[in-house]
Amino acid sequence: MKNKIAQEFQALQDRICAHLESLDGQSNFQEDLWQREEGGGGRTRVISHGKVFEKGGVNFSEVHGPVTDLMKKQLKMEGDTFYATGVSIVLHPHHPFVPIMHMNVRYFQLDETDYWFGGGIDMTPHYVNPAQAGIFHQGLKKICDKYHPEFYQKFKVWADDYFFIPHRNETRGVGGIFYDHLKATQEISKEQLLQFALDLGDVFAYLYAEQYEMGTSKEFTEEHIKWRNLRRGRYVEFNLVHDRGTQFGLKTGGRIESILMSLPETASWVYDFKPITNSDEEKTLSWLKKDVDWLSLCAKIK
Amino acid sequence: MKNKIAQEFQALQDRICAHLESLDGQSNFQEDLWQREEGGGGRTRVISHGKVFEKGGVNFSEVHGPVTDLMKKQLKMEGDTFYATGVSIVLHPHHPFVPIMHMNVRYFQLDETDYWFGGGIDMTPHYVNPAQAGIFHQGLKKICDKYHPEFYQKFKVWADDYFFIPHRNETRGVGGIFYDHLKATQEISKEQLLQFALDLGDVFAYLYAEQYEMGTSKEFTEEHIKWRNLRRGRYVEFNLVHDRGTQFGLKTGGRIESILMSLPETASWVYDFKPITNSDEEKTLSWLKKDVDWLSLCAKIK
Repeated sequence: MKNKIAQEFQALQDRICAHLESLDGQSNFQEDLWQREEGGGGRTRVISHGKVFEKGGVNFSEVHGPVTDLMKKQLKMEGDTFYATGVSIVLHPHHPFVPIMHMNVRYFQLDETDYWFGGGIDMTPHYVNPAQAGIFHQGLKKICDKYHPEFYQKFKVWADDYFFIPHRNETRGVGGIFYDHLKATQEISKEQLLQFALDLGDVFAYLYAEQYEMGTSKEFTEEHIKWRNLRRGRYVEFNLVHDRGTQFGLKTGGRIESILMSLPETASWVYDFKPITNSDEEKTLSWLKKDVDWLSLCAKIK
Repeated sequence: MKNKIAQEFQALQDRICAHLESLDGQSNFQEDLWQREEGGGGRTRVISHGKVFEKGGVNFSEVHGPVTDLMKKQLKMEGDTFYATGVSIVLHPHHPFVPIMHMNVRYFQLDETDYWFGGGIDMTPHYVNPAQAGIFHQGLKKICDKYHPEFYQKFKVWADDYFFIPHRNETRGVGGIFYDHLKATQEISKEQLLQFALDLGDVFAYLYAEQYEMGTSKEFTEEHIKWRNLRRGRYVEFNLVHDRGTQFGLKTGGRIESILMSLPETASWVYDFKPITNSDEEKTLSWLKKDVDWLSLCAKIK
């Protein structure tokens, strides 16, 4: 079945790239095929200097080989051989009112016996707009509900916990969903778990287009760009200091350029920046916390 | 003696700031006094939007308190109470041919029994010029040789090993000197170790001025600025992923803004950037390796 999953993930990568190129309308993805010495390889696709996207990547990979000591230590897992395939996306738009968005769906197998799915979609607005966050979460809940009544709530809390920057005491953005170690049960089959990942993948470009439309209805200034770059700095901090996927890749000899395609073209750090009281920047900071119920909030706004 | 060391370090901070302000000639350091709940505090001084410096920090801190479990784990040390004082500097200039420079001198004490000094100065040119690197290393060797004939060679190798970015397989820059766990011996007293740290501190602004003068003799273009920003991106990668001081500070609840003043105002990441063959950018990459003997190289150039 793993070959089928990898094929489905490649087809998913194709569909997502086609949708994002159509949204951008100016730039195209450039593809790099790469191989991994120990087994497998990938298709890294990067778009840059588009109309919508300053920089974005949609990566597919399928890697396998012996489980090294470093992997055992990093992943706390036992096994002789592993197989992993997935699609990873990070999009950095130009427009400060359009969010950074990230998606990952992956399948992991240990030897021939143990396997699990992981993944999720989360959003990092430079400026948090609760209505936009609510619509994003609604879209995710709709997919989750097709598969299990508890998925959305459980995976929403998981995302809040995962996409958190402890040293800043703030979330990376408005969260989304995150899941890992998902296996078939009596309630849901392995095929359905794959279909869940593909459904998430297929809604991704749609969710992004929705955010793009809402965000670009507003004009922006140089000051908004400065703030966007500061928020990108926090994104870099999360990815380099805390993200377990990035750490794992950097420490186990993953393909560096594919891993770090997640970093923005430009980011900025200003010493002890304090936003003006009651500004949109200060309001954004006040939203960067766990356990915000974006769905209820969105319903109230309406 | 620890109070004397802290006083000397504060006076050193004053002298360095005065020299760097005089070099900049336009901007001044802004000071933030801060206190640490568990004991001690610091004086963070940041200069920004100067003529020379886009962003720079010269920090003094003196902190003490109980050794926490997290500290034991991070530092692999045993003890009940600790005391630490030091001066840390990172300078990010505007000019692409002027290097980033970093200095740290510190004194650490465990309970009342165990103590050591640590520190060093290292340089990260955006464009490596072997003559400039040689002159920098000559300056460091001169100070080292005043204290011990083996210091320079030993600490130069240590810096090569410490300021290395494994996931890029390149050094952060042209190195310098780095030392840690330095204690008094029959050959060198505790007072002399303090004097060594102060001498390094006092030569820092001089070494920087020398580099500034050499670097600014060249004109630069927008392309040089783009490359400078890419190299700053690598500096961010080193500091956030590998630097033990930064990791320690972030994980043990240090003052975030003081720790991350080391990050540049702007940094950049471009997917799989490949410099043109035989360009200055490609030559720079070829120099970013361990064990380059900058002193001999510099002598040969002359």
